[in-house]
Amino acid sequence: MTTTQSAHRNGVDTAALFATLDAVRNQPEIARFQFRASNTWVSGTHNRSTVAGFHGALQEMEHKHATVLEADHPAVLVGQDNAPTPVEYLLHGIAACLTAGLVNIAAARKVTLTNVTSTVEGDINLLGILGLSDGSVRNGYQEIRVTLHIEGDADDATLRGLVEQSRERSAVYDALTNPTPVVVDVVTG
Amino acid sequence: MTTTQSAHRNGVDTAALFATLDAVRNQPEIARFQFRASNTWVSGTHNRSTVAGFHGALQEMEHKHATVLEADHPAVLVGQDNAPTPVEYLLHGIAACLTAGLVNIAAARKVTLTNVTSTVEGDINLLGILGLSDGSVRNGYQEIRVTLHIEGDADDATLRGLVEQSRERSAVYDALTNPTPVVVDVVTG
Repeated sequence: MTTTQSAHRNGVDTAALFATLDAVRNQPEIARFQFRASNTWVSGTHNRSTVAGFHGALQEMEHKHATVLEADHPAVLVGQDNAPTPVEYLLHGIAACLTAGLVNIAAARKVTLTNVTSTVEGDINLLGILGLSDGSVRNGYQEIRVTLHIEGDADDATLRGLVEQSRERSAVYDALTNPTPVVVDVVTG
Repeated sequence: MTTTQSAHRNGVDTAALFATLDAVRNQPEIARFQFRASNTWVSGTHNRSTVAGFHGALQEMEHKHATVLEADHPAVLVGQDNAPTPVEYLLHGIAACLTAGLVNIAAARKVTLTNVTSTVEGDINLLGILGLSDGSVRNGYQEIRVTLHIEGDADDATLRGLVEQSRERSAVYDALTNPTPVVVDVVTG
């Protein structure tokens, strides 16, 4: 086995991972990132965002390719069902964030994973967004449940420890479970 | 103009919108929805979710078509940059939710919109998720800013009022700005 091969685990370049941590330790300001999306209304509840550029490591950066994300409401909610609803993107976000973190942490801890899948459910009572609640029903999810199924060359406690650490370090978990300031500005005309 | 034509505005079937509100008033339990995503790890920080089925209006439902959503980290964050990061999906979610709500509310208030675009920025300091903070830096976004550009046949105050009402009724705005319970379960082996 060469050094290069042994530095990869779970598809993670662990040498690059530790080098990145060292680089940020030495120059903390490179950790300041700004992510962006730009959205255009199509018709009714149908709209689409483009995700392309971001700022990080003290420079403007571009993703390898721009991604177009659509959103709509289903017919039962007076949409044309061209795409997932806005709230379903939150469920993808939490699953993706916990999974990516888990895989990185496993690589750092020398655990080889063979399979990771997850299901996410989010309960929402639309009385809130429809304005038909007396104020007791919130607009957003009442609860989100993530169930991760994990296989790898480590015992149950170790695998659960990977998930716990991923949850502790998850950007999306924090954004959902703790208040995130959202400023809304409007330009008309 | 026929009744059918006049019942549509901004691509919203306002007759269906008001009928839906009446139906929920008469039978509030049809407003209980559950949205879902299922995610599979690909390699490294690359993973993909499928959004297809959901529960609502007292029945299991399927979107007109299933949507596959990918996620990855950019190269600067030790990924392969196959797709947007998990946190970028939150930015699409808030833009899409505010836009869909705005368009529905405009239709209900007989405002015809001609153009709606928005940009979203989210500031995040990666010292949090990298575990290099003393605890003072959160994992998630420090702030998200949405700027909506709106054109329509109403004055500035009226257009701003549409956005304010959309924000008040937004599921994603609530999910981000207020704590959302997220339960994480693990199945190993």
